[in-house]
Amino acid sequence: MPQEETKLRDGRIVRSEAPLNLEMPFSALDSFLTPTKSFYVRTHFPIPAIDRNAWWLYVEGEVEKPFAINYEQLITLESVTAPVTLECAGNNRNFLEPKVKGVQWRLGAVGTAEWTGVSLSTLLDRAIPKPNAREVILEGTDCGMLEDPKSPPGELKFARSIPLEKARRDVLLAYKMNGCDLPPEHGFPLRAIVPGWYAMASIKWLQRIIVTDRPFTGYYQTLDYAYWHRTDYGHWQRGENVAELTPLSELQVKAEIARPAEGEIVPANTSVSVRGAAWACDAEINKVKLSTDGGATWNEATLVGESKRNAWRLWQFDWNTPSQPGKQTLMARATDSLGRTQPLHRDPDRGTYMINHLLPIEVEVR
Amino acid sequence: MPQEETKLRDGRIVRSEAPLNLEMPFSALDSFLTPTKSFYVRTHFPIPAIDRNAWWLYVEGEVEKPFAINYEQLITLESVTAPVTLECAGNNRNFLEPKVKGVQWRLGAVGTAEWTGVSLSTLLDRAIPKPNAREVILEGTDCGMLEDPKSPPGELKFARSIPLEKARRDVLLAYKMNGCDLPPEHGFPLRAIVPGWYAMASIKWLQRIIVTDRPFTGYYQTLDYAYWHRTDYGHWQRGENVAELTPLSELQVKAEIARPAEGEIVPANTSVSVRGAAWACDAEINKVKLSTDGGATWNEATLVGESKRNAWRLWQFDWNTPSQPGKQTLMARATDSLGRTQPLHRDPDRGTYMINHLLPIEVEVR
Repeated sequence: MPQEETKLRDGRIVRSEAPLNLEMPFSALDSFLTPTKSFYVRTHFPIPAIDRNAWWLYVEGEVEKPFAINYEQLITLESVTAPVTLECAGNNRNFLEPKVKGVQWRLGAVGTAEWTGVSLSTLLDRAIPKPNAREVILEGTDCGMLEDPKSPPGELKFARSIPLEKARRDVLLAYKMNGCDLPPEHGFPLRAIVPGWYAMASIKWLQRIIVTDRPFTGYYQTLDYAYWHRTDYGHWQRGENVAELTPLSELQVKAEIARPAEGEIVPANTSVSVRGAAWACDAEINKVKLSTDGGATWNEATLVGESKRNAWRLWQFDWNTPSQPGKQTLMARATDSLGRTQPLHRDPDRGTYMINHLLPIEVEVR
Repeated sequence: MPQEETKLRDGRIVRSEAPLNLEMPFSALDSFLTPTKSFYVRTHFPIPAIDRNAWWLYVEGEVEKPFAINYEQLITLESVTAPVTLECAGNNRNFLEPKVKGVQWRLGAVGTAEWTGVSLSTLLDRAIPKPNAREVILEGTDCGMLEDPKSPPGELKFARSIPLEKARRDVLLAYKMNGCDLPPEHGFPLRAIVPGWYAMASIKWLQRIIVTDRPFTGYYQTLDYAYWHRTDYGHWQRGENVAELTPLSELQVKAEIARPAEGEIVPANTSVSVRGAAWACDAEINKVKLSTDGGATWNEATLVGESKRNAWRLWQFDWNTPSQPGKQTLMARATDSLGRTQPLHRDPDRGTYMINHLLPIEVEVR
């Protein structure tokens, strides 16, 4: 592992102190649910200190009946509990060559927790979106000034939008994580959980829900957390595609290897358990293939446990290590039930995000 | 005038050689139509060398009948001639404090020419936009690589979109400028003229017209040529507005002083003609006020000539200069027929564009 990964807090790698960014060493993966203390932390601004008793959530915009609700009222509403995997859109960024700006995540800006809260649809039904409603902006309390000269002048709040249809289908407003109150760094008192989407959409310290009649173009879905999507508009198929800036949304299918970890020494001529996790958006993981020889040959891993919608699936493979000592390159490749699989190579249109091409892990057989 | 303004070409200030950016010294303004040789030039990439006989314009996308048309066919269609003012969205940028990136235009990235061509509506009618059509992307031939790490990888073509309604109303596809074929630097063989909009929309070296069913988010209307528009979505008017990235479009009402020019020496105790031009989007210039004492008092200037839609209006004022020598600060302020007037101060949400607050010009009475 690179040297800068040595500074730890609660077993997590400190990627930055201000704002606080903590990564789980992915080699620590040993259960379907990630313990809250091990869960990666991604923040953009100082963590807001919110008094639950003075906190209100506003629901407004293109709705018939705007309203505000406090914490006490919110927790009396019908609750839902579900495991959902959250992955940072920049997870694996440290693998990119050449190096790019941004938090240098390796494998561990991903985790699965059991979230308890209220369906966003419950609040939307109460507010009654108008017929022209198309999107829902989720706005957090976290805010600050950015150095980017292209950012909006003054203080900026973290905010993202989701289509109204998605907001009604499965978005959760969670006040519990793994059965306990949300910790401050995970969004106390309330955060969104947007299943199947990169976690920048799962707004923490939630403060406002704004229903709008048009696509939201806030900072965090244009100048940040966006990629170039290309369309060939041509009738004559001249291949002249047009790049359009598009907000990041759905998780890309991916398998990651937890153990052995990069640089780990494994015994020769024995059986070693290779294990990890795989996930996709709105689909089951159908298959994880593993190569222990840098991609020359592939074997199918065993999927472990049950498949749960928008939560990862653990997998394992018994590797008969070579009798000769030496370096070996491991790679995993997941395929989902919609037939989507990991690309072999990086697509530069994705900028510094959506990294799901095959990532080699080098181990030493000794 | 600042020293860097000394390099001239055909009487125009060379702001950069590659790409070629030339500014008209605004003090040279002496007629309603700007001579082609004096007209400012704004390019982003090398000027394409296009053979008119091998050139085709493609009309495609969300249309019933995509087609291509060549130059010979195009000029047989019914033509329209109209004077239209074009202003670069970054005109006056050199006045901003602190200094910002971008071409350092003073007053002269603006001009009015008589454009002759075919109405875009003529071609759209022939292609028959589908019921879901919403926008029209205009794509030029000019292209290149950008240094911006956030730009789309590879070669980028200059392209912008306009709403279908605007495209049908008054957009012109021009092949003549002031009665002669377009020169290469102004878009030969064909360019768009989008009246009332900043000139980045008036695509030069036009190659493709793409009808689409959704807002276009290409580089030149998101990462470039955009500003922050704020909306207060709040039901409770807490003043918590949300900044949204918005493509630049309509010209902002503005008057500029041509003569006397900055730093010019004018005789004391005599009558000096102060003159300039004023323009607005889809409105008449109703009034130009002039201050010769840094804004303490204001006088109304005389509007010259006829009012023409989306072309500037010249104005003049007889200034009885003070008997005492000294520096005097001149400022002009236009108001249009929709009651819009120039703001006193700069709005930082506009970034490096849409500069129409009052700009002082200092002259010396001697």
